[in-house]
Amino acid sequence: MQTTRLRRFLSPSQSRFPIHFFSSTPSPPPIEPTPSSNSPHLLSVGHVLRFSRRFMDQDVAHFSEVTGDYNPVHLDSEFAKSVGGFDRGRVVHGMLVASLFPSIIASNFPGAVYVSQDLKFKLPVYVGDEVAAEVQAINIRQIKKKFIVKFTTKCFTNEFHPVVDGEAVAVLPSLNLMK
Amino acid sequence: MQTTRLRRFLSPSQSRFPIHFFSSTPSPPPIEPTPSSNSPHLLSVGHVLRFSRRFMDQDVAHFSEVTGDYNPVHLDSEFAKSVGGFDRGRVVHGMLVASLFPSIIASNFPGAVYVSQDLKFKLPVYVGDEVAAEVQAINIRQIKKKFIVKFTTKCFTNEFHPVVDGEAVAVLPSLNLMK
Repeated sequence: MQTTRLRRFLSPSQSRFPIHFFSSTPSPPPIEPTPSSNSPHLLSVGHVLRFSRRFMDQDVAHFSEVTGDYNPVHLDSEFAKSVGGFDRGRVVHGMLVASLFPSIIASNFPGAVYVSQDLKFKLPVYVGDEVAAEVQAINIRQIKKKFIVKFTTKCFTNEFHPVVDGEAVAVLPSLNLMK
Repeated sequence: MQTTRLRRFLSPSQSRFPIHFFSSTPSPPPIEPTPSSNSPHLLSVGHVLRFSRRFMDQDVAHFSEVTGDYNPVHLDSEFAKSVGGFDRGRVVHGMLVASLFPSIIASNFPGAVYVSQDLKFKLPVYVGDEVAAEVQAINIRQIKKKFIVKFTTKCFTNEFHPVVDGEAVAVLPSLNLMK
């Protein structure tokens, strides 16, 4: 049900970041190209995949249920303020925010397998706030028929404040973009 | 509902790792001790917190719903085998497995705030398999009334094979152990 909430967040003109949007002639050119007449869209170094989402009460409650993480900073506004020091109350689980990264990668590359993920949680994401997550391919290596891709993984508020930063490595079954 | 599934995994005699279990006289002695007559249990360097869990079909389905990560390697056994290369079929989302770490920390230290988490996904966790997650305090610093604690974060199969490895840093409101 959540995939319907994933959508493009910013137009290129709104972004202050160097972004390569998908096109039939992406720039810079693809690394390790695998020509396919069925898909003109190939991931290349520099490509950014980006989606946004607003995490609501029920998302945080469901994430607590499925992970067992009932930290009251996510569930109790007064506790979040007094003990957590979060001046606007309850915050979203960091790992829920960070799950946007593999979600973006998998939605573009079904069959992707995560190898690593580094995360720095820089600012809280408050329940109800919209955030934009983006992954940018920074290195692509082909090994046999698969591709090992390193991505930067970042998440921002509407005001471009970084909330989560890091890198991920994933093995992709192809470089063909689904979207 | 998931907290009921979190339980101690191994007895000390079963472990091949140097583990300090909780006691009223933990060894090595606490770093930055904050004596409390209400709680004789204080986290100290060397302490290990450990819980196990078996992720089932519905856990993976719920995690897909709440995160939007519908990668078929988690949901389609044939796809997981043929494209993902997972010989036993569907695998648990890596971020769901990794969420055991903040869950363990938060269940012992309500109000804990995550600062960073590095993750290396070494082996797949198949749906239905039991895993043991453990976090070990390796550094504790006090800043004003809070504690910045670095943990190693590891997850193992029943056969002690490492499936997830990494480190996390969290800010704890106290070193008093809840359990």
